[in-house]
Amino acid sequence: MKTREMLQSHPSPRPQQERLAAFIDACAQCAQTCIACADACLAEESAARLARCIRTDLDCADACAAAMWIFSRQTEPDERVLEAQARALGAVCRACAEECAKHESMHEHCRICAESCRRCAGLCDEVAASRA
Amino acid sequence: MKTREMLQSHPSPRPQQERLAAFIDACAQCAQTCIACADACLAEESAARLARCIRTDLDCADACAAAMWIFSRQTEPDERVLEAQARALGAVCRACAEECAKHESMHEHCRICAESCRRCAGLCDEVAASRA
Amino acid sequence: MKTREMLQSHPSPRPQQERLAAFIDACAQCAQTCIACADACLAEESAARLARCIRTDLDCADACAAAMWIFSRQTEPDERVLEAQARALGAVCRACAEECAKHESMHEHCRICAESCRRCAGLCDEVAASRA
Amino acid sequence: MKTREMLQSHPSPRPQQERLAAFIDACAQCAQTCIACADACLAEESAARLARCIRTDLDCADACAAAMWIFSRQTEPDERVLEAQARALGAVCRACAEECAKHESMHEHCRICAESCRRCAGLCDEVAASRA
Repeated sequence: MKTREMLQSHPSPRPQQERLAAFIDACAQCAQTCIACADACLAEESAARLARCIRTDLDCADACAAAMWIFSRQTEPDERVLEAQARALGAVCRACAEECAKHESMHEHCRICAESCRRCAGLCDEVAASRA
Repeated sequence: MKTREMLQSHPSPRPQQERLAAFIDACAQCAQTCIACADACLAEESAARLARCIRTDLDCADACAAAMWIFSRQTEPDERVLEAQARALGAVCRACAEECAKHESMHEHCRICAESCRRCAGLCDEVAASRA
Repeated sequence: MKTREMLQSHPSPRPQQERLAAFIDACAQCAQTCIACADACLAEESAARLARCIRTDLDCADACAAAMWIFSRQTEPDERVLEAQARALGAVCRACAEECAKHESMHEHCRICAESCRRCAGLCDEVAASRA
Repeated sequence: MKTREMLQSHPSPRPQQERLAAFIDACAQCAQTCIACADACLAEESAARLARCIRTDLDCADACAAAMWIFSRQTEPDERVLEAQARALGAVCRACAEECAKHESMHEHCRICAESCRRCAGLCDEVAASRA
């Protein structure tokens, strides 16, 4: 990812570039792990019992993708919108981390995905708090 | 849109199908009007002065698209996640409605877009309240 | 959807507004039916046997969403890009229509989804041909 | 990104995992640079003259995001669909690389973005050729 270089090349870069870049990268990684985890769950013999995990993965991926785009923008930010987005993303990342953690001893994809979701949730909290 | 038929064909349909379908359709419409409004703003002679409107349109479209997918799923829902998503979407729709409304006497695309955003924000409130 | 009004409110509207609006709306509907079909398949008892259908639905939804955004833009179009996008979307819509059709006697969601995909594929062909 | 670990944790991993992971990561990076480049262009004083660049960036980001999801799935792949998607993405990445390159001496964000797009286009060709 070239996130940090891109953020810095903006005519009016936002404060705390390093944290912002780390958050955007965490969203990208979390989106990818969630999509791949849903897909791997679907190919498991126990797919039917993983329905809740698949559904949460898909929701988390959608929310991460939206956040990745929204936080990549530095032009004319609206702090209330950004805080609400970070908080809502934190909620879905936490739900997904919890769900994936239930299967992590059985499925390596769930273990990695839970880890990505937890990391992203932690950064959501920091980003939301910094705007509160 | 065939949203209502699709929701009803789920093996375990969620309650309040009509409101849910109306909300999903409002998200789809709001996403489309926001993308088209950003694009029309960009083609206006005054594009540089519409930067805030373009940015808000793009954020709103991203959030609407994510909500459209998330609320189209009825399998194993997580009510806290859904409430947080609906509230966060309401915040960005309201911000976009407000911004577009500033230019609605000059630009028909901003007028239609403000209307779509207001409608979607109202349904966000209802959907969030019904899960609180 | 307010697609047609939005397209017409652009400072330099593209030709064949009616067909363009119909195509964008077909993409929106196809994306929604595919997301909902994947979700309904996941809740069926036979979910494990519907893995191919779920995967194709998810791919088709992603491609439809991208096309919906790309074709909603009228500023500075690149005809080669638009033709390639329409052709690639046609391929995935056709694959999804075919897969869903296999289950349409069993699952109403697959029947509606196959129909949406077929309709979208047909419009992809028209849109691609008009730019060739 | 944990792309490679996630791909390998799938119950039936696809061949050429390394190239696939590199491609998915290139899509993620290209999507992020395009979103950030569009946003930075919008904040430039010369925004109005960068309309074509902004539009192409947004199209390229949308197509990259869709490809990132589609190629992250390994369950029940359809080779014709994947080839068509890779070719269509190559077309938009090349168009965006070309457009951004026109402004790269003026704007660092356009220079980095052109580089990301060129790299992603090259991988699109490899991936498409490997499925032809």
